[in-house]
Amino acid sequence: MPLWHIYCPKGAYSDAEKRQFSNRISDAYTKFGMPRFYVSVIFHEVDQNSLYIGGEPANDFVRIWVDHIARSLEPQHRGWWMKQVREIVTPFVEPRAFRWEAHVDETPTELWTIQGLKPPPEGSDAEKHWVSENRPSIY
Amino acid sequence: MPLWHIYCPKGAYSDAEKRQFSNRISDAYTKFGMPRFYVSVIFHEVDQNSLYIGGEPANDFVRIWVDHIARSLEPQHRGWWMKQVREIVTPFVEPRAFRWEAHVDETPTELWTIQGLKPPPEGSDAEKHWVSENRPSIY
Amino acid sequence: MPLWHIYCPKGAYSDAEKRQFSNRISDAYTKFGMPRFYVSVIFHEVDQNSLYIGGEPANDFVRIWVDHIARSLEPQHRGWWMKQVREIVTPFVEPRAFRWEAHVDETPTELWTIQGLKPPPEGSDAEKHWVSENRPSIY
Repeated sequence: MPLWHIYCPKGAYSDAEKRQFSNRISDAYTKFGMPRFYVSVIFHEVDQNSLYIGGEPANDFVRIWVDHIARSLEPQHRGWWMKQVREIVTPFVEPRAFRWEAHVDETPTELWTIQGLKPPPEGSDAEKHWVSENRPSIY
Repeated sequence: MPLWHIYCPKGAYSDAEKRQFSNRISDAYTKFGMPRFYVSVIFHEVDQNSLYIGGEPANDFVRIWVDHIARSLEPQHRGWWMKQVREIVTPFVEPRAFRWEAHVDETPTELWTIQGLKPPPEGSDAEKHWVSENRPSIY
Repeated sequence: MPLWHIYCPKGAYSDAEKRQFSNRISDAYTKFGMPRFYVSVIFHEVDQNSLYIGGEPANDFVRIWVDHIARSLEPQHRGWWMKQVREIVTPFVEPRAFRWEAHVDETPTELWTIQGLKPPPEGSDAEKHWVSENRPSIY
């Protein structure tokens, strides 16, 4: 459900680092009881001189776009969540002096399936089963 | 209007298969009277170890993200539509044992143009003309 | 805040042209007082036979998808804005006989940060400071 698109400079992260980064993202969601396999992260390496900030090439920039589907944030929790995002991302941008920007969109839960299955309601026994098995199954 | 982004493993589909897949998607919309050229499909081949599910590399995963623009679904039709999506996608994931996930977003019709033209209202004569010509034209 | 994704044929634009195109986009926002560095543009070169329109390969097609975050358009201004988009884009598609389509989504301002900072309110002194420095800073 959360789908993180990470647009980063070519070669910004090794495979091991991409795995660490995506695990760090996954941890931030599973601590609230979400099945771990809900968390998808795609790294898109952007070619040199293909990302522009204010009209200038920005080859040191990481642009993160996130879609939330399974859960939506109460308005009063949005600022809190963006601080979580900062905590997640900081170790992967600051030491490299990458500039970065992130935004989250929220899309309708009912327009979402995994393996063609409608995911179970939040907090349901079926969802707990999906958590424990860490894969989708008919319920 | 529907824009399908298909993030798939490198080499997952031949050119002929991409064409079949996108025709199958197009058929699902045109049977409801939509101009065929409204249906855009972009295949994005994802590099090895660039897509992660729950923190683990998922080189067997097809992630589909769809934007609906020209039409929005009544809440009671959303489940039905996701079954249509499953029917469309199944022949292109099951035989290859690909795991997959799909979600649809809906965006404002008034913030959409083709060739700089605002598409005609649903069901209008102008839309029927676009259907029969299969291209945008001034109306 | 505006994030423009431009999906274009491989080699469609030189580095100089990408810079011109993104400057033209940036100009369209800064004339309304927006910090110039809010404007991000990513060019995605699409492989041959990877974009399909109505099931047919479309190797002459530019598909533009825009996310608006910092500002949302009043319904009565939407048509006007899409004309601005046409003016921005035309010099980069017409001389090359590219077909094109564009749509804009609007996402929540509160779910957006730059360098981990929540951008200042529209029209505030802090925003004017960001405009004049053309970079984010603590306020």
